[in-house]
Amino acid sequence: MAKDRWAVYLSGEIHSDWREQISSGVEKAGLPVDLTAPVTDHGASDECGIAILGPETTRAWTDHKGASVNAIRTRTLIEAADVVVVRFGDKYRQWNAAFDAGYASALGKPVITLHDDSIGHALKEVDAAALAVAESPDQVVRLLDYVITGRL
Amino acid sequence: MAKDRWAVYLSGEIHSDWREQISSGVEKAGLPVDLTAPVTDHGASDECGIAILGPETTRAWTDHKGASVNAIRTRTLIEAADVVVVRFGDKYRQWNAAFDAGYASALGKPVITLHDDSIGHALKEVDAAALAVAESPDQVVRLLDYVITGRL
Amino acid sequence: MAKDRWAVYLSGEIHSDWREQISSGVEKAGLPVDLTAPVTDHGASDECGIAILGPETTRAWTDHKGASVNAIRTRTLIEAADVVVVRFGDKYRQWNAAFDAGYASALGKPVITLHDDSIGHALKEVDAAALAVAESPDQVVRLLDYVITGRL
Amino acid sequence: MAKDRWAVYLSGEIHSDWREQISSGVEKAGLPVDLTAPVTDHGASDECGIAILGPETTRAWTDHKGASVNAIRTRTLIEAADVVVVRFGDKYRQWNAAFDAGYASALGKPVITLHDDSIGHALKEVDAAALAVAESPDQVVRLLDYVITGRL
Amino acid sequence: MAKDRWAVYLSGEIHSDWREQISSGVEKAGLPVDLTAPVTDHGASDECGIAILGPETTRAWTDHKGASVNAIRTRTLIEAADVVVVRFGDKYRQWNAAFDAGYASALGKPVITLHDDSIGHALKEVDAAALAVAESPDQVVRLLDYVITGRL
Amino acid sequence: MAKDRWAVYLSGEIHSDWREQISSGVEKAGLPVDLTAPVTDHGASDECGIAILGPETTRAWTDHKGASVNAIRTRTLIEAADVVVVRFGDKYRQWNAAFDAGYASALGKPVITLHDDSIGHALKEVDAAALAVAESPDQVVRLLDYVITGRL
Amino acid sequence: MAKDRWAVYLSGEIHSDWREQISSGVEKAGLPVDLTAPVTDHGASDECGIAILGPETTRAWTDHKGASVNAIRTRTLIEAADVVVVRFGDKYRQWNAAFDAGYASALGKPVITLHDDSIGHALKEVDAAALAVAESPDQVVRLLDYVITGRL
Amino acid sequence: MAKDRWAVYLSGEIHSDWREQISSGVEKAGLPVDLTAPVTDHGASDECGIAILGPETTRAWTDHKGASVNAIRTRTLIEAADVVVVRFGDKYRQWNAAFDAGYASALGKPVITLHDDSIGHALKEVDAAALAVAESPDQVVRLLDYVITGRL
Repeated sequence: MAKDRWAVYLSGEIHSDWREQISSGVEKAGLPVDLTAPVTDHGASDECGIAILGPETTRAWTDHKGASVNAIRTRTLIEAADVVVVRFGDKYRQWNAAFDAGYASALGKPVITLHDDSIGHALKEVDAAALAVAESPDQVVRLLDYVITGRL
Repeated sequence: MAKDRWAVYLSGEIHSDWREQISSGVEKAGLPVDLTAPVTDHGASDECGIAILGPETTRAWTDHKGASVNAIRTRTLIEAADVVVVRFGDKYRQWNAAFDAGYASALGKPVITLHDDSIGHALKEVDAAALAVAESPDQVVRLLDYVITGRL
Repeated sequence: MAKDRWAVYLSGEIHSDWREQISSGVEKAGLPVDLTAPVTDHGASDECGIAILGPETTRAWTDHKGASVNAIRTRTLIEAADVVVVRFGDKYRQWNAAFDAGYASALGKPVITLHDDSIGHALKEVDAAALAVAESPDQVVRLLDYVITGRL
Repeated sequence: MAKDRWAVYLSGEIHSDWREQISSGVEKAGLPVDLTAPVTDHGASDECGIAILGPETTRAWTDHKGASVNAIRTRTLIEAADVVVVRFGDKYRQWNAAFDAGYASALGKPVITLHDDSIGHALKEVDAAALAVAESPDQVVRLLDYVITGRL
Repeated sequence: MAKDRWAVYLSGEIHSDWREQISSGVEKAGLPVDLTAPVTDHGASDECGIAILGPETTRAWTDHKGASVNAIRTRTLIEAADVVVVRFGDKYRQWNAAFDAGYASALGKPVITLHDDSIGHALKEVDAAALAVAESPDQVVRLLDYVITGRL
Repeated sequence: MAKDRWAVYLSGEIHSDWREQISSGVEKAGLPVDLTAPVTDHGASDECGIAILGPETTRAWTDHKGASVNAIRTRTLIEAADVVVVRFGDKYRQWNAAFDAGYASALGKPVITLHDDSIGHALKEVDAAALAVAESPDQVVRLLDYVITGRL
Repeated sequence: MAKDRWAVYLSGEIHSDWREQISSGVEKAGLPVDLTAPVTDHGASDECGIAILGPETTRAWTDHKGASVNAIRTRTLIEAADVVVVRFGDKYRQWNAAFDAGYASALGKPVITLHDDSIGHALKEVDAAALAVAESPDQVVRLLDYVITGRL
Repeated sequence: MAKDRWAVYLSGEIHSDWREQISSGVEKAGLPVDLTAPVTDHGASDECGIAILGPETTRAWTDHKGASVNAIRTRTLIEAADVVVVRFGDKYRQWNAAFDAGYASALGKPVITLHDDSIGHALKEVDAAALAVAESPDQVVRLLDYVITGRL
């Protein structure tokens, strides 16, 4: 009594290997999960707009072009996701992660947040909109395992 | 002139073998049906939140964590369903079953209820929102058979 | 530059062989079309409710039960359709066909009506909501052929 | 504990005074109801397209223009309605009434049908999608009275 | 910096005076709240279908008629509500209350549940879908007061 | 040729007087704008959950309760807004502001961001989803003035 | 049996007085219509972005800023409209008018196009999505009059 | 971490080989993209209505029939698309391209426009609703490549 495949979008922090941990955990557990993610190469993600569509002379329009191109990917993948995991690290502002959480939430997607308890107070509105608040990639894998197979 | 596969979500009572009866009936009839269901292991369903995300000291938060984790599964499967069957037994409050019926109904999903006639009065609002009120798993199988193949 | 498969729901009249004509036309043209339809066995369609869910003593509830069961099929298939064809014959009231046209129309589905010109005035509101008004099954096949392949 | 005003759209038959009966019943009961309706002058309804937008040489395009203009009114009023009442008389095909019922139903509007029991079998799919099947305008008034005020 | 009026629907138990308590609390606090509710006269609510639309010979159809008529009111008021409060008492099954909670939840309405802690475990799925779990009408009033005015 | 009133939600930073500046600017310009906002009393916003619904022993559940109660207000006001202004200051993480921007964006609401250019790179995804990026409350007032009256 | 007020958005050409003609026609006829429109001062519409949010060094970003600011107005008013009238003149490309027609059409708004027959072929896809194709402002007024009052 | 297939609809100009360039570029890059498009045979596209459904005596109805038939294809493919590319050439009015852009935009589809910078001012509203503005088919291919694979 199971769904064939689950699409899980991994939003947020790009400076640690949490996506790889989830990926290998999901593989090890043999879960029917298709992981998707934003472009995680920081440089490419920043440069994509001007690299493809031509240079800009200001930071603002360079960013605007790049962020808009990335949005083609991220919005499509979030809308196609069954579950959205949003990771907050301890560095950087990561407003795009919180934006994705709000976006996914308004679409009615189940959201799982992943962050250290130490930043929990600052994330209280985001966590309150999530169906699970995890502290480790391993917990996310176990959540997916339970949610999909019923195994604890 | 038929649809390839039908996704049917089986919500509600977890203390009898009605899902297995529907499953074997569907298989015997050779219907192109993919059955889905909540986690039906009562213990796992109650413990999943604290087992994966860490212990709580109160009943309320243990329940909140667990029910939220289960909601990742149930909401996803209800939204993916073509038809939602909701079973009410003669024991327990089963408010989650009625909740699922309301949730599916607001999404415009065809709902089939399954219960003894003896509790029909208490279920009148739920039944009125259903497209069929069955009393046995066999009737549900025959409904699916007719709805999918046209066979009576 | 084409879509893999098109789901086409054939609503309405069940007393002539128009569905078979469309089906063989679609097959002859080799179109990637999956045809769906309501249960077209008039007796089964009338009796399904009481046959499966138990007898009634009035015409009204017999009809209510049957029509509700049929709605599990028709609503699911209309929502899954890319295109809805609605056929009106020269006999009977066929209010269910007009109901389906309104239902499909509100969902934003492209509607093709199929009927003799002689009943066109009575169908003017339905036709005005359609993207094509055909008079023969062959025209419907040619519409589907053109819409899908671009062939005239 | 009440809603300020209820918008009720009266669709269907235009050859008897059922709308006036509901209107005077609603007024007599002092209900906070705003009744709306299609244009009920048959001639105007048929001619509006060509009268305003210029003549046509065929029945089909005269009808298409007129029905499209009327749809500006009817779709707007149905979408603005809290409740949709659909009346079927014993004459004419009234496919537009059944179309409206399907349209309102797909939008999730509560539908009340109003017709003689004698045509109930032909209307079974429409009635099955309705929340109440009335036989007289007085019953519709009493339904609105109960639904709005709780008075029986 | 405030919204003019808030529409709050009070669903559930009809055997205690919790609605009156909320109503007088809201009035005392001078909140710009419009309270709505189902018909709370148990007899009227059970009889409305047959009283208006004619008698039935079975319990099931009596209930079906009545529950459908009540649904005209409840669905309209839930869709018009900004906030939905759902009360569970200690008696009866109250499946309609849980149904309303699921329905409101799928529509994205903020839900407040109101019940004794003693039945919290049975209500865990419903509570997990709520934004606040209150134990007394006074808490509901204070929630509305805070949510609307920011007063604590 | 104008809309009667515009509802504008002011999300984000609560440690400077930007809302008051917009409010007095809007008043001075005589704009038909109804401003709404989250509860901006930091203490009340943090304590509301436990103050009304009872104490918690952990930071996490205190936050969860409070953030959920605040969400009753914020989601309702965002859904009721014509335009959403989101302010990012130079202190704190302000993930709730980014969350609101994502939420409003997924609902199709026009978003205006308000922040110093110095944090523009970190906000590039949020800004790319906005229809205007302002640096001062005065610019927001002038945007509203232009958008509503056409005055430059 | 009428709706209180109708909101009608007038999109498109800004170089002739067609909006004024409709406005005075509507006033003369005493119709309960609230007309809305984009900013029709060409200079203001082009300059609004840089005038409020600061200068740009390229045509492209000047346009982007301005068009985005105008979109705050136009999208809000189109979503608030009951009916959208789109006027195409014989000069300029007017792609924004066609864009608005597509936007309104996807939202399910009734669209009336207004243009000379001489450009009808180029507008055939837009006209096919409209419920009425008018050639003069007077016809638009008469359409509104008929649609709202039933007068021919 | 990728989506299986991307559906990309290519709307607009039919007088140059831009679609073939994108198609061969996508193939060369080995992208998992399914390209769809309107019927690009100008004659067929103009004649389809009367060729299949019978002749008309006026240009207007010939166009209406044809454009409506084409809409069965275009609306279905736009709704099925993940990304919509809209090409504007330097000839003809191409209002249908702008209409498609508005339609796709209201559905929340990511839009990429493709046109020479020389017509950018006239397209400013359309470009402002797009997530990328390209000048060459090669740029579109590189956008798709980056969006799907993350390669720059």
